[in-house]
Amino acid sequence: MLTTEAPVACCTPVAAPRITDGEARTLASVFKALGDQHRVRIVSLLANSPEPVCVCDVTAVLGLSQGTTSFHLKKLMDAGFLRREQRGVWAYYSLAPDALRSVARAFEEEGSR
Amino acid sequence: MLTTEAPVACCTPVAAPRITDGEARTLASVFKALGDQHRVRIVSLLANSPEPVCVCDVTAVLGLSQGTTSFHLKKLMDAGFLRREQRGVWAYYSLAPDALRSVARAFEEEGSR
Repeated sequence: MLTTEAPVACCTPVAAPRITDGEARTLASVFKALGDQHRVRIVSLLANSPEPVCVCDVTAVLGLSQGTTSFHLKKLMDAGFLRREQRGVWAYYSLAPDALRSVARAFEEEGSR
Repeated sequence: MLTTEAPVACCTPVAAPRITDGEARTLASVFKALGDQHRVRIVSLLANSPEPVCVCDVTAVLGLSQGTTSFHLKKLMDAGFLRREQRGVWAYYSLAPDALRSVARAFEEEGSR
């Protein structure tokens, strides 16, 4: 099982008082990873799959080339949204545990007025 | 008081089963608007201000040119995050009501496994 050090895991609430430049950069990188319709569809696909999904099936569902699909998967991996597991020649992907919950925390309002 | 028709208001949960292409595009446009550290800082600034904030103060806090600041404010307006109010020569900005809560809904897990 391969995992990636996860910006997703460290979301400061956007509404926290005196957010630092580093925190703003981290938050922006997480949102940017989701700022593409194909990556939203990948997250949706994996969120609704009880088992890790073969990259071959992700490619088929998106209707994109394997190279483009891999590009989008890498962006989501780098942002900490996914886990990747090699089974023979195929990579299988699943959502990182608590990835969605971590991003939801970014929108909590506890730090605001 | 000027407002913008708000993609933010219409967030389907990312984890909803069978998300449509249109829903994926809308979600991606909302996340993309936040996928920049300066725009994250603007949202943070407004979330922590009890009153609408003058564009002149936003510019000063960000340390960017007025043109660049206006560019980022427009991106956030177009995504439905902000309200804009003209007072004399200055525009004043505040967070759209429930903007953060609406985005948080995108990460609810009710539609998932």
